[in-house]
Amino acid sequence: VLIEDDEAALERALTGEGALTIILSGPGGSSGDIVRRVLARVTGARLVLSERMRTALEEWAQRQDRPLPRRADRLALLPQGAIVWSVPGLEPAWAFESPTAVFAVLPRSASPDAFLEAHLLPLVRARLGTRGALALRTLKTVGVGLAEIEERLADWLGPANAGGGEVEVSTVPADAEVWVRLRARGATATAAAEALAAAEAKIGALLGADCYGRDEDGLERIVGRLLLAQQLTVSVAESCTGGLLGHRLTNVPGSSAYFERGVLVYSNRAKQELLGVPEAVLRAHGAVSAPCAEAMAAGICRLSGSACGLAITGIAGPDGGTPTKPVGTVFIGLALSGRLAAHRFRFAGDRAAVKWQSAQMALDLLRRGLERGAR
Amino acid sequence: VLIEDDEAALERALTGEGALTIILSGPGGSSGDIVRRVLARVTGARLVLSERMRTALEEWAQRQDRPLPRRADRLALLPQGAIVWSVPGLEPAWAFESPTAVFAVLPRSASPDAFLEAHLLPLVRARLGTRGALALRTLKTVGVGLAEIEERLADWLGPANAGGGEVEVSTVPADAEVWVRLRARGATATAAAEALAAAEAKIGALLGADCYGRDEDGLERIVGRLLLAQQLTVSVAESCTGGLLGHRLTNVPGSSAYFERGVLVYSNRAKQELLGVPEAVLRAHGAVSAPCAEAMAAGICRLSGSACGLAITGIAGPDGGTPTKPVGTVFIGLALSGRLAAHRFRFAGDRAAVKWQSAQMALDLLRRGLERGAR
Repeated sequence: VLIEDDEAALERALTGEGALTIILSGPGGSSGDIVRRVLARVTGARLVLSERMRTALEEWAQRQDRPLPRRADRLALLPQGAIVWSVPGLEPAWAFESPTAVFAVLPRSASPDAFLEAHLLPLVRARLGTRGALALRTLKTVGVGLAEIEERLADWLGPANAGGGEVEVSTVPADAEVWVRLRARGATATAAAEALAAAEAKIGALLGADCYGRDEDGLERIVGRLLLAQQLTVSVAESCTGGLLGHRLTNVPGSSAYFERGVLVYSNRAKQELLGVPEAVLRAHGAVSAPCAEAMAAGICRLSGSACGLAITGIAGPDGGTPTKPVGTVFIGLALSGRLAAHRFRFAGDRAAVKWQSAQMALDLLRRGLERGAR
Repeated sequence: VLIEDDEAALERALTGEGALTIILSGPGGSSGDIVRRVLARVTGARLVLSERMRTALEEWAQRQDRPLPRRADRLALLPQGAIVWSVPGLEPAWAFESPTAVFAVLPRSASPDAFLEAHLLPLVRARLGTRGALALRTLKTVGVGLAEIEERLADWLGPANAGGGEVEVSTVPADAEVWVRLRARGATATAAAEALAAAEAKIGALLGADCYGRDEDGLERIVGRLLLAQQLTVSVAESCTGGLLGHRLTNVPGSSAYFERGVLVYSNRAKQELLGVPEAVLRAHGAVSAPCAEAMAAGICRLSGSACGLAITGIAGPDGGTPTKPVGTVFIGLALSGRLAAHRFRFAGDRAAVKWQSAQMALDLLRRGLERGAR
């Protein structure tokens, strides 16, 4: 990747486990300096003057019949342990191997082919060899932030031992979810599976009800299963999500068994006419308020006859925010078997992100309500 | 780079201008899903079922003497416009070219060499080669099949000359949308832009009203602009799409100015209660019928007071099909300024594909109706 001078992107790319990063670097421009600096930082290697690079640069300049670049000393500053790659007639390249990754910094001035074929591919081949068997599991959580998940899993993050094997646990922030990724290694497939099962049991206990599923599970499918098991139907009243909640619920094959209906009440008039939200609630609290969310949830239950009603009202942005209700303010109302509650959220991100997180938290509120009901 | 499952790092790496990113992706694990999703998000390309990838996966499985992976349909979900790379005996790879970057997603199961030498290097060479300036344009059409578009553009497909430069025209097929991609090369940026403009004018004329926009334009945004210009509001009645149409309309910032309300009438009872669909229509024709779609469109106009009413009723599958109305049968009703019409469609693909195409054709019917009204 040429991430050029986006330092943060570079740092993140370079810290990805198992990464093979190809950096097409300018001939000593500031992007090259950034690459060297960030690479040294993330790998913990010191920048030192590489005699090999210095020599390679001299040879290159000589062949080009050019003077040695004035910045040669700076170009030859490489992370300690860097490998220098020379291809006759081309500006030299360099690479760095960390325990988890390979970084190849190829000069943008040259065709990368020569380096790929002569130097990079042998290195890639060697790295891709497998070391024993691997077993993988993803545990999916929703409704809890990354920081809290990482605090709970503090003893597990990074390499650990479980069930006689080696397990590596990492977190994956996804769309308004946090996934916990387990990679177990063992000498055999059985050993890897045993290590995985041991770690999964312990980590599952730490995640508790915040873990909604694993691997292929989606939140909408889990909610559907709970509704089916409890023989309940759900109906939805959406304002700022505009149909996304209904869309997600009905993405599940067979959802017609538990999805009764929905209303997309974008206008205040629609909220009053379809859901009977009282004029007084809208006047006193506004459409984006807990009382309105509760009235919408109660209204959709009344209208549909469903035992579960989910209502979303909020400000998806980019316009419409106020000092007390900034963009991203969303109220979610849940009516479940006669009980009524509303929850206030403040979501970050653009319109699409606010819509997605709103639907996500609505589904999660319903999931948690149904799971409590089942106990 | 293998950034695997660090979504944020992936997103940043993929948005770096000038990037060449090599992603070594697991064989359909969730990391592959993340790659697909993030890539689609950052490039604005939608995930669509790639028939080429599907075929390549089938061939690969056959050669391996293995059954087709159960997740083949998911593996074949690629960003619209993705290039599929096959190397005999290896799991297929894919690549995506955006105007600023190339992403090559190589299977982790295979040695990357084969792909690098046969497919990636030629692509890299072409991108890094400095053969003057490049100007790009995507013209987006909807409602016409690939074959017809290619017939109309027969004189243009492949390399051609226009406005004193070289223009390469290619088509990007997907369900319910075909993009026409123009790449113009010239000695200078001005020359490339002139060649592009000349070709775009001629190709635009061949596409006519089937072309709804260019580059970043989305169908929902174009529909929104037309509604705003004509000071009309739209309301929707969705059955099989379950909220997707409302979701897409309200993805556009400012859509509250023209989106009044929607109803998700999954059950027959909801169709009758909310939209006044006559019992007799449901009994004589069924809920998936032209009369029902018309009654729904008329009903949502009556309920909302909107001049435009869009209604969708169909069978998204996988269950519910009959010999006369197989899965994928969808009726779309449009009420526009007092006129009422219903159109029958038969969409291919799975539940998600049928939902998407239904919303797509509904938006397109409204677009064409509004454009006719404006003339």
